[in-house]
Amino acid sequence: MTIRYPNGKKYEPTQHPIARKKTNLSFSNRGKALEDELNESNEYYLSRSIAVIHKKPVPVQIVHVKYPARSAAVITEAYFRSPSTTDFNGIWRGKYIDFEAKETTSRTSFPLNNIHEHQVEHMKKVTELDGIAFLIIKFTALERYFIVPYEYFEEKWDRKIAGGRKSMTLTEIEDMSIEIQAGFNPRLDYLAALEQHLQSPIKERIERQENE
Amino acid sequence: MTIRYPNGKKYEPTQHPIARKKTNLSFSNRGKALEDELNESNEYYLSRSIAVIHKKPVPVQIVHVKYPARSAAVITEAYFRSPSTTDFNGIWRGKYIDFEAKETTSRTSFPLNNIHEHQVEHMKKVTELDGIAFLIIKFTALERYFIVPYEYFEEKWDRKIAGGRKSMTLTEIEDMSIEIQAGFNPRLDYLAALEQHLQSPIKERIERQENE
Repeated sequence: MTIRYPNGKKYEPTQHPIARKKTNLSFSNRGKALEDELNESNEYYLSRSIAVIHKKPVPVQIVHVKYPARSAAVITEAYFRSPSTTDFNGIWRGKYIDFEAKETTSRTSFPLNNIHEHQVEHMKKVTELDGIAFLIIKFTALERYFIVPYEYFEEKWDRKIAGGRKSMTLTEIEDMSIEIQAGFNPRLDYLAALEQHLQSPIKERIERQENE
Repeated sequence: MTIRYPNGKKYEPTQHPIARKKTNLSFSNRGKALEDELNESNEYYLSRSIAVIHKKPVPVQIVHVKYPARSAAVITEAYFRSPSTTDFNGIWRGKYIDFEAKETTSRTSFPLNNIHEHQVEHMKKVTELDGIAFLIIKFTALERYFIVPYEYFEEKWDRKIAGGRKSMTLTEIEDMSIEIQAGFNPRLDYLAALEQHLQSPIKERIERQENE
């Protein structure tokens, strides 16, 4: 999806994600990156005034910038930085929403080393302050998407820290998450799935099942 | 405050803002950039579990990346993009907080061309969804800081769109904002100033004064 400017001259610095919308159109969504799917869903939510949720820019440490005469500044040396927060945040129904989106090619589990420790700390703090923090995990080979609420993820993270397994199994995720149904518009109605969880939290559901 | 690596080799890609904290220490805060002052205040709020508010990374369009053997990836061509949202957002008391921070060297007014139209649209949407959106403006020459709630800013923005003046005067800002008192820790207790506004909104205060 990257738009390339061979000579670097015609770059339009006021261009922002919305302006690139058209290039995201395709007849099939198969194999589309999770990030693009979520950006599309967020544009849908924004256009309908349902939610204002954006992906944060990739954090970059800029070392050198050139200012050629009569054209846009060019960054000629920069490095990727490790993110200190999650990728997406915003507001929905007056509530603060915060999540990290990750894909895995595994068919059986999600490796926890996909998530940085300071991202976990960030989600913990957000939860303590009454925000809604979660992961969205895509199993690309299965074309399945899950919302894993932070409270549940935390258990599995703590298990890893305590020396236990370094991943969450698909079965564990199926048990303790909400599956998102992929559709056309919005592509991933993850807020509908989240609403389901808020109305009837997974843990309560499981407890009810155990008592029956 | 930028840490420079002359040969680009020793760059530590896992380094994140917290790790750079020490370089922000100084005996005097005079002349410090507003962004640094706000980052310090946000670290204070975070360390005390008062709020989780972060500055978003600078949006960059990455065109070329080199992957040298045995060292971190180097971005060799990238361009600054115009931000489609505000600079800072997060959560405080369960509420979604969203603001843009700007400095001006003027002693008499704040030029509205400092703010992009899509940032105004973003703040409008946030306000509609019950988030708290505002500007923090620093008059560097006066060492004065103001919180301008979005509702008030919108009036002045609309005046500009309608062909009126292209700035807000300092007097207008003094009338319709909350002044932030600069201190030591936190450097800028802008949430205390915001609380003052939420408990007794400026407009109501002015109406009361007019009726007396």
